[in-house]
Amino acid sequence: MSTYGTLYRVTTYGESHCASVGAIIDGCPPGLELTAQDIQVQLSRRRPGQSNLTTPRNEKDLVQLQSGTEMGVTLGTPIGLLVKNEDQRPHDYSETDLYPRPSHADYTYLEKYGIKASSGGGRSSARETIGRVAAGAIAEKYLKQVYGIEIVAFVSSVGKIHLPAHVAPPSLAPLETGEDDDNAQDALSKEFVDLLATITREDVDKHPTRCPHTETAERMTQRIIRAKEAQDSIGGTVTCVIRNVPSGLGEPVFDKFEAALGHAMLSIPATKAFEIGSGFRGTEVPGSRHNDAFVRSEDGRLKTMTNWSGGVQGGITNGENIYFRIGFKSPATISQPQETAQYDGTPGSLAARGRHDPCVVPRAVPIVEAMAAIVVMDQLLIQNSRKTAASLLPPIKTLPPTMVMPKRA
Amino acid sequence: MSTYGTLYRVTTYGESHCASVGAIIDGCPPGLELTAQDIQVQLSRRRPGQSNLTTPRNEKDLVQLQSGTEMGVTLGTPIGLLVKNEDQRPHDYSETDLYPRPSHADYTYLEKYGIKASSGGGRSSARETIGRVAAGAIAEKYLKQVYGIEIVAFVSSVGKIHLPAHVAPPSLAPLETGEDDDNAQDALSKEFVDLLATITREDVDKHPTRCPHTETAERMTQRIIRAKEAQDSIGGTVTCVIRNVPSGLGEPVFDKFEAALGHAMLSIPATKAFEIGSGFRGTEVPGSRHNDAFVRSEDGRLKTMTNWSGGVQGGITNGENIYFRIGFKSPATISQPQETAQYDGTPGSLAARGRHDPCVVPRAVPIVEAMAAIVVMDQLLIQNSRKTAASLLPPIKTLPPTMVMPKRA
Amino acid sequence: MSTYGTLYRVTTYGESHCASVGAIIDGCPPGLELTAQDIQVQLSRRRPGQSNLTTPRNEKDLVQLQSGTEMGVTLGTPIGLLVKNEDQRPHDYSETDLYPRPSHADYTYLEKYGIKASSGGGRSSARETIGRVAAGAIAEKYLKQVYGIEIVAFVSSVGKIHLPAHVAPPSLAPLETGEDDDNAQDALSKEFVDLLATITREDVDKHPTRCPHTETAERMTQRIIRAKEAQDSIGGTVTCVIRNVPSGLGEPVFDKFEAALGHAMLSIPATKAFEIGSGFRGTEVPGSRHNDAFVRSEDGRLKTMTNWSGGVQGGITNGENIYFRIGFKSPATISQPQETAQYDGTPGSLAARGRHDPCVVPRAVPIVEAMAAIVVMDQLLIQNSRKTAASLLPPIKTLPPTMVMPKRA
Amino acid sequence: MSTYGTLYRVTTYGESHCASVGAIIDGCPPGLELTAQDIQVQLSRRRPGQSNLTTPRNEKDLVQLQSGTEMGVTLGTPIGLLVKNEDQRPHDYSETDLYPRPSHADYTYLEKYGIKASSGGGRSSARETIGRVAAGAIAEKYLKQVYGIEIVAFVSSVGKIHLPAHVAPPSLAPLETGEDDDNAQDALSKEFVDLLATITREDVDKHPTRCPHTETAERMTQRIIRAKEAQDSIGGTVTCVIRNVPSGLGEPVFDKFEAALGHAMLSIPATKAFEIGSGFRGTEVPGSRHNDAFVRSEDGRLKTMTNWSGGVQGGITNGENIYFRIGFKSPATISQPQETAQYDGTPGSLAARGRHDPCVVPRAVPIVEAMAAIVVMDQLLIQNSRKTAASLLPPIKTLPPTMVMPKRA
Repeated sequence: MSTYGTLYRVTTYGESHCASVGAIIDGCPPGLELTAQDIQVQLSRRRPGQSNLTTPRNEKDLVQLQSGTEMGVTLGTPIGLLVKNEDQRPHDYSETDLYPRPSHADYTYLEKYGIKASSGGGRSSARETIGRVAAGAIAEKYLKQVYGIEIVAFVSSVGKIHLPAHVAPPSLAPLETGEDDDNAQDALSKEFVDLLATITREDVDKHPTRCPHTETAERMTQRIIRAKEAQDSIGGTVTCVIRNVPSGLGEPVFDKFEAALGHAMLSIPATKAFEIGSGFRGTEVPGSRHNDAFVRSEDGRLKTMTNWSGGVQGGITNGENIYFRIGFKSPATISQPQETAQYDGTPGSLAARGRHDPCVVPRAVPIVEAMAAIVVMDQLLIQNSRKTAASLLPPIKTLPPTMVMPKRA
Repeated sequence: MSTYGTLYRVTTYGESHCASVGAIIDGCPPGLELTAQDIQVQLSRRRPGQSNLTTPRNEKDLVQLQSGTEMGVTLGTPIGLLVKNEDQRPHDYSETDLYPRPSHADYTYLEKYGIKASSGGGRSSARETIGRVAAGAIAEKYLKQVYGIEIVAFVSSVGKIHLPAHVAPPSLAPLETGEDDDNAQDALSKEFVDLLATITREDVDKHPTRCPHTETAERMTQRIIRAKEAQDSIGGTVTCVIRNVPSGLGEPVFDKFEAALGHAMLSIPATKAFEIGSGFRGTEVPGSRHNDAFVRSEDGRLKTMTNWSGGVQGGITNGENIYFRIGFKSPATISQPQETAQYDGTPGSLAARGRHDPCVVPRAVPIVEAMAAIVVMDQLLIQNSRKTAASLLPPIKTLPPTMVMPKRA
Repeated sequence: MSTYGTLYRVTTYGESHCASVGAIIDGCPPGLELTAQDIQVQLSRRRPGQSNLTTPRNEKDLVQLQSGTEMGVTLGTPIGLLVKNEDQRPHDYSETDLYPRPSHADYTYLEKYGIKASSGGGRSSARETIGRVAAGAIAEKYLKQVYGIEIVAFVSSVGKIHLPAHVAPPSLAPLETGEDDDNAQDALSKEFVDLLATITREDVDKHPTRCPHTETAERMTQRIIRAKEAQDSIGGTVTCVIRNVPSGLGEPVFDKFEAALGHAMLSIPATKAFEIGSGFRGTEVPGSRHNDAFVRSEDGRLKTMTNWSGGVQGGITNGENIYFRIGFKSPATISQPQETAQYDGTPGSLAARGRHDPCVVPRAVPIVEAMAAIVVMDQLLIQNSRKTAASLLPPIKTLPPTMVMPKRA
Repeated sequence: MSTYGTLYRVTTYGESHCASVGAIIDGCPPGLELTAQDIQVQLSRRRPGQSNLTTPRNEKDLVQLQSGTEMGVTLGTPIGLLVKNEDQRPHDYSETDLYPRPSHADYTYLEKYGIKASSGGGRSSARETIGRVAAGAIAEKYLKQVYGIEIVAFVSSVGKIHLPAHVAPPSLAPLETGEDDDNAQDALSKEFVDLLATITREDVDKHPTRCPHTETAERMTQRIIRAKEAQDSIGGTVTCVIRNVPSGLGEPVFDKFEAALGHAMLSIPATKAFEIGSGFRGTEVPGSRHNDAFVRSEDGRLKTMTNWSGGVQGGITNGENIYFRIGFKSPATISQPQETAQYDGTPGSLAARGRHDPCVVPRAVPIVEAMAAIVVMDQLLIQNSRKTAASLLPPIKTLPPTMVMPKRA
C-alpha cells in the first residue's frame, strides 16, 4: 500500500493529473531545524525539464509544508506536505486510449482495480515519487546533522554504456573466462572503492546524465539522444553509496538491512533489479577471496580490509560504506508505432502521444537517495531503541568471553 | 524482525543450537486439508546431509504440528510447529572463538545485540529457515489446490558455471558488443521461456545440484567438490518461476509485487542480489524491443507475446509466468586459514572448524520456493479482499470508456 | 502514531494553527461514487460554532479532495484531502503561557517531544479529528451502500443528567441493592433496545445536545449553559449503535472486534472509558440471565433473544446490533482561575484565555460514528479476504458434525 | 490476529486441546537475565486448580523455553516457549454438541471460519492466555529491573460485591443525587489512592479471590460459591495500577497510551468494559474539580496534586500512577439448563458439561498484569527511540520559551 516504515513512516498520495501530490511523514525526531528549502533542493533535482534529456513536462514542483513544524523546527508530529499538479488538464480522448501501453501499468491497474485514471499514468506516474523525495530529504537532514551520514547516487550505465571497468561496480567488471576468479580483486577495483569514498552530489550534478565519469557521461548523452530521436527509450543503472552509517542496523530475520533496502528500491517505478556489495558478481568469487578480512583501525575498532559485502553482513550493517546498484528498465512509453492489441483484443498499431523521458536514470538519482535515507532512518530509530534499552541493563558477569564483545586492546 | 506478512503472517524463532526451531503461521484459510507430511516434503529437500555436496551435519528435521489443525484440517487459527534441534551440544571453547569469522554475522550480531550465541551461527544460522520452509509449504498447498499455482526453483549457476546461454535467464546471456542490442530477442531465449513453462520439481531433483541441465549440473558438481577439497566455498544463483498467478497481485506504491518479492528473497541468508524478468540485462534493451506487446489469447483475455517483464508490470502481476533470479554469495565459513584480526584487534590466522556447506544453492532451492509461496499467498489474500469489496458495488455507468475495462470481443 | 488500520488505512496530519489539517485514506474500494459533499455532511456536524453550546471558534471546514477519485468515482488509490485552518493567527504571548494547563496535554507533549506548538492544543487539538471524520464518511458511504450498515451515535449523559433509566444503556440503569440481579431484565430495557433499532441521525440532530430524549436534552442544555456561565466544563457519555453488520468480523486473539473498537474510541481526545453491550453492568448479572439464548429467525439463521453481548461474542460479531458507550471527561480548559504551578514549579493562578467547548459530547457524536465506520470497514475487508479464500476450497467431507456448521432446517 | 506490538512483539498459538500452547516474543532487549522460573511464577498464578473457586481442570502449566536465551541471558533474538496441554483427550461426542453455547464463541467462530475445534473453547479458550502471561512476565522483569516499574492487579468487584466506597475506584463510589458533584473529592478517595501506591502481589494473593480487602473478599467467596452451587456464573471487575512509569509514553494520535492499553485489555477473553483514571465517573465531575493541578515535587519536577487522569494526559503518561479497571462478564458456560436453539434452529434445552470457572476474575489478575507489562514495554521502546534521536540534536536557541520546557527553578 502507500505507507512505508515502522518508526519513520511515509504515506503518499497523488496521481499524475489530480489536484496535488503529497505525503505525510510521521516519526521525524522533534527539534530538527527544517524549512521547505531543505526539501526543495532534492525536489528540484527530481523535477522534469532539467535538460534536453528529460520529458518536456515542465513543472516547478514547489513544496508547501502544511504541518509538523513551527518557526522552522519540527514538533515531532506528522509533517504534511504537498506539491500542486500544475498540469490538471482535462483529458482529450483519442484512439490511443483504446490500447493498453505495452509493459506499462495501464493493463495491470485495470486488472487490479477495475478502473483507472483517464490520463497519463495515474498513480503509476513518476509524480508519485515526489512524496518520497520530500520524505527522504527530511530523513537525510537528520542523518547528516547527527551522524554525518552521506548518501550519493549516480548513473553507472545507460543501455550498454557502462562506467569503464576500472571504476565500475563489481558486476560491471569484465567476466573472466576461467572457472576460478583469479582476477577477483580486479572486480572490486580500487578506483571504484575510492569513488565510493569521495563522490559528492556536486560531482554527480556536473553532467546532465548524472554520471561522474565525464567521457562516459558524454557517450551516455549521445545514447539517450539517439533513443529520443528514434522515438525509442533506453534503460540504465544507478549506483548509490551510503557513508558513515553506524554498525548494527538491520532487523533479522525478515527485515535484514539489504531486505529493507531492496524492498524500498524495488518499489521505485521501472526498477527490475537490485544488488548490494559484490552482488551477482560476488556469486562467482570463491569465499577465500570474497571474505572481507578484519583489521584493527586507528580508533581501535575493527574494520574490513576489503568491502565485497557492501557494508552489510548477516543482514546487519558493519560500519563500512554501503553500496548497491539498481536496474531501471527502458521506459515503456515510446512514440514509435508498436504492434499490439487493444483492450478488447483487436490487433492494431499504437503510437503513444504525450511527453515522456527517453531514459529515467538521471532523474532517478534523487529518488534512490531518498529511499535510501528513509530506510536508514527507520532502521536507525529501531536499533537506537534496542541499544538504549540494552544499555540500561547491568553487565552480565557470568557469560563466557565467546558471547560478549571482547575488550579492545 | 522475525514476523513477515500482513494477512498471511509468519513468525519464526530459533538458533542453531537451542532446543528447537519453529514458527507460528497466522492467517491460513480455514478448511484446508493439511498434515505434517505436506510440510515434511519440503523440509526434507532443505535438510542437510542429502548428498556429498552439503554439510555433514545430519538432522532428520521432523516437523511437529502443535496447533491450528484438527483431524487433518486447518481451523483458521495460528498453526504452531517446531523441529527439534538434535544437535544441542555444549560448546567446547577454542581459539577460533577469538575471531569473528570474516564476512560472517559474528561481528555484526555482537555490534547489534552486544551478545551472541556461543556456538555456530546462532540466529544467523540457516536452521532459521526451517520455519520459512514450513510456512511456505502450507501456503503452497493452498495455492496449488485453489489456483493451480506452481512454484519451481532451480540452480542456474555455481561460480562461473552457468546454464548455457541458449537456456539461461536474460542476464546470463552473452553481452553484445555494440551499443544497440540487435540480438535482444536472443537474450530472452525461447528455450529458457519453454523451460520456465514446463520445469517440475522432479526435473530439478534429478541431480544433487538441482540444476536441470545435466551436463552443466555435472560441471557444477565438480566445481563444488573442488571448493570443498580446497577448504574453500563458492556461490551461485537460483532462478525461480511461479506459474498460474492471477493478475492483479501487488500493492503499489510501496508494496509492489517485485518489492515484496525482493524483500522476501533478500531476507534469505547469504543473498546479495535479486532481479525479476529481464533484470539488469533489460536495462540494456531499447523499449521498442523490450516492451511486451499484447495479443488476444484463446480465452479472449489479453496476454503478452513476450515476457521481458517477468509477469509484473507497474508493480502488479499480469497473469504471465513470474520469474526471478537470486544471487547467493560464497559461504563465509571456510576451513582454510584466513589472515584476519581477533575481536580485540590482534592480527592472526583463523582456520574455522565445524561443518558447513561449500555451496548453499542446492539447499536454497526449497527456501526460495517457500518465500515465493508466502509472498504470493499474502498478496493474494490482500487483493482478494479488494476484489470482493469492489465486486459488491454497482457498475458506474457514467465513466468514459478510457477508465474502465472495455468489453472483450 | 498517526496511522490506523490494516487494509482500510487512515493517516492524519495537522495541528490547531498550522496551514491545514488533513488525511490520506488508503485502501478504499475502487468504483465507489464519492464527492466532497459526501464528506462535508459529517464535517459540518463536527465543526465548531453550530450552537451556543460549543466553542465560538467558527470555521467552515470545507474539505478539498486532492486525489484518489476522478469524475466522482474512487480509483482505489489513496484519497488525499485537506481542510484549511482559517485561524493561523500568530500567537500573542502572555503570562498564561507560563503554565501547563492542568489535565491538558501541554505538560505531557513537552515531556514526550521536548517541544510543543506555541498556540492552542497543537496536535492534541480536536481539529486533529477532522481527518478521522472525513475517513469515516468515506467508509460509511461504502458500508451503507453495500451492506446497509447504519451507524448512529447520540449523547446519553451530560454530567449527572442521564437518559432516563427506562431508555438508558445497561450501565446507566439503577443499581439494585440485593446481591443477585433479580431485575436484570430491566437493566437491558426494551425501550433502549427499540431505540437502538430505530434511531436515526435526524432524530439525534433535532436537538443541539444530540440527545434523542427531548426532556433530558433540555436539562442537558441547562447543565452545559450552567458550566459555561461558571467558566467551568462538564463531561458526558456518547452511546453508539451499528446496525446490519455481518457476522464474523473481528480478529482474535489480539484484534477482537471490541479490542479494535475500544482502541479506536479511546484514541479520540478526552475519552477515558469504553464499554460494549452490557459493559460494567453486565459484570453484576449472573450468567444464567446474562447469556443471550439463540432462536431461529425467519430467514432460518440463528439470532439471539436478548443482546447483552452488544453484537460481539468471542471477539467476533454475531450479526446483532453492536452498541457501546464512551465516556468523555470534562474539558480541561476552563476560564475560571485555577491554583496550579508554572512549568518551572512556581505556584500561581491560571485563568486560561481563548475559546473552548464547555462540553464536548455534542460535537463528539460524528467523531464516534467516524471511528466506528473505520473499524468496521477495516475488519470487514480482512474478514472478506478470509471468507473468499475459504470459499474456494472444496468442502471437507470427513469432519464430524461438531466441527462444521450444521445444515439449517 | 495473533500478533501484538510494534517493537516488543508477541505472537501466540494454541487451542484448548491441541498439543501445546505457546508464544514467540520478539524484541526483548538483549542481555537480560531470564530463566523459565521468571515466567513460571506468573503462569502458576494463572493456572487452573488453585482453589475451590476455579475450574477443576488441573494442569501444571510448566513452561519450556525453546530459544532466545543462552546460559540464562537473553540474546535479543525471538524467545520461543511452550506449555504442553496435558489434556488432549479425544472428544466424546454428545448431544450438547448440537447447541452453540449462548454468549460463548461457538457460534461466532463457525460464522467466521466455517469450522471450529471439536472440543472445549478451541482458540477462544482461556488457555490461549498462557502465551500472553509468559510474554508479560518477560517484559515485567525488564521493566522492574531497569525502571522499578511495578504492576499490581486485584479484584475490585464480584457481581454486586464491590470494594467498600471509601477504598473503591471512582466509578464504584456512590452516585450523588444532585446535578453537581459537590462530593467529587470523595469519589477519588484517599484510601483508594493510598492502596494504589502501596499494594503488592503478596497482599493480593493473601486471599483466593485476589481482593485485597479481607471482609469484602470473604463476601466475594460466598458469592462465587453460591454461583457454583447454582450451576451459574458471575462476573466482576479487576483494577490494576502501574507504578513508576516514565512520563512521555503513548503515541498520539491513534496509539495514545490509553488506546493501546484499552486495546490490550479488551482482547482478554470475557472483557466488556475498560476505564482509566476517573473513567465513567469522571464524566460527571466538573472540570474545575476534575483537573489535576500541578505542584512542584521535591526533585524539582512537576507532579499533580490529584490523579483523576489516571497517569495519562493527552494520551501520554505524565509520571503519576496509572490505574484502570476492566469489566469481565459472567462466564457463558454454565451447567444449569438453558432454553436455546440448536445450530439448525431446533429449540431445546442445553445443559453444558465440562469444567469451567464460575467466576474468572481471580485468575484474570495475572493476565491483566501481563497485558499491561506488554503495552508499557512496547510503548517504552518506541518512546526511547524518539528520545534518543532527539537528544542527539543540538538545542534550538531561536525558539520562544512557550515552545520548550522552561528551566526548572
